[in-house]
Amino acid sequence: MAGKKVLIVYAHQEPKSFNGSLLKIAVEELTKQGCSVTVSDLYAMQFEPRATRNDIVGHLHNSEAFNYGVETWEAYKRGCLSKDLVEEQKKVREADLLIFQFPLFWFNMPAILKGWMDRVLVRGFAYDLSKIYDGGLLQDKLSLFSFTTGGSKEKFAIGGDIRYLLWPMQHGIMHFCGVKVLEPHICYAPENVSEEKRKEMLAAWTQRLKTLWKEEPINCSPEWYFK
Amino acid sequence: MAGKKVLIVYAHQEPKSFNGSLLKIAVEELTKQGCSVTVSDLYAMQFEPRATRNDIVGHLHNSEAFNYGVETWEAYKRGCLSKDLVEEQKKVREADLLIFQFPLFWFNMPAILKGWMDRVLVRGFAYDLSKIYDGGLLQDKLSLFSFTTGGSKEKFAIGGDIRYLLWPMQHGIMHFCGVKVLEPHICYAPENVSEEKRKEMLAAWTQRLKTLWKEEPINCSPEWYFK
Repeated sequence: MAGKKVLIVYAHQEPKSFNGSLLKIAVEELTKQGCSVTVSDLYAMQFEPRATRNDIVGHLHNSEAFNYGVETWEAYKRGCLSKDLVEEQKKVREADLLIFQFPLFWFNMPAILKGWMDRVLVRGFAYDLSKIYDGGLLQDKLSLFSFTTGGSKEKFAIGGDIRYLLWPMQHGIMHFCGVKVLEPHICYAPENVSEEKRKEMLAAWTQRLKTLWKEEPINCSPEWYFK
Repeated sequence: MAGKKVLIVYAHQEPKSFNGSLLKIAVEELTKQGCSVTVSDLYAMQFEPRATRNDIVGHLHNSEAFNYGVETWEAYKRGCLSKDLVEEQKKVREADLLIFQFPLFWFNMPAILKGWMDRVLVRGFAYDLSKIYDGGLLQDKLSLFSFTTGGSKEKFAIGGDIRYLLWPMQHGIMHFCGVKVLEPHICYAPENVSEEKRKEMLAAWTQRLKTLWKEEPINCSPEWYFK
């Protein structure tokens, strides 16, 4: 939708990968719609996933015993977070829609993307003491987890529903900060299917993006995940 | 139990933290029992969480398009994984019990620990094509997730059962590799309780460790998580 701002946080090492193709499609299609699209290409940026003292510029609130949550909260209020975090927070603040594009690693996002969540979404910026879930500080934003898997849909179904693993990401992070969650976009085992099937999956993503702004967010409650 | 080997993978920046105390207790108590205890102190080691080309020494299997899963699998078979991964795999191979000690970040482990999972548990070492779950390559090992939370038990209960968030870690990683899972050890909101309560929590951990080797693993199926 023309005028909307989209941040794509992308976590794949290889532009020629299937994830790279999904990213390219999203940038092209959303730009064509008149959206303003920003990409945080985490591996290309060599984004730091480790939550350390380096995230605070200058002196600590309590240098006797380092507490990451307290220190980043205090640093956020003082405007003393490290430059890379300030830049990511600016992108998040401006965005109407956050798309996370990644390959599933161990029923979860890759560490580099988890590090983006750990370091960017600090207290004071994304949530606060009584400002969580529907009262979170990042309201009026949408999010979408778009990922590829190694295993087939059938293989995932053996262990249990794939929605089980979306709980910590969608509910525990996005919903916690007040961000609304669109249906995830899952491409199963692109490495193990035919070229034709891969093309179909890419076309389906383009197609979905065309009507994305008309979608209703999911009801991010236990029923959606564990019904 | 005398003679048992334990690997503690520890993810906290501050030795004086509550997580630091839990680590110290585990090392002391298990050593007292005659166990051989190894600690991977991830922040102190500046452990790399990012899954990159640097994890493969020498030439790539396919340098045209980098595929982390394929490259680390091939490198494992050729003995060409980077030194830090080889060292961690040696520790895992020798261990009878893996304890993961960390503060919960966003319904999940911190990125530095997720990076340990992503990079250490490569195909060929931890699992293989038809060797997953009860057939995984790390059978005859136990694991235990021991973590602290920011929120109280009551706060966690609002959103849904805390077991929901254990699914990707316990089932998606440990069970997937054939590792048996002991009951998690959760210390709720140590930062927000009295000094007396904190001492009680530390004493409870010591107490649990005393009879740990008599525990039965959980039944790591959807029923345990979502009953």
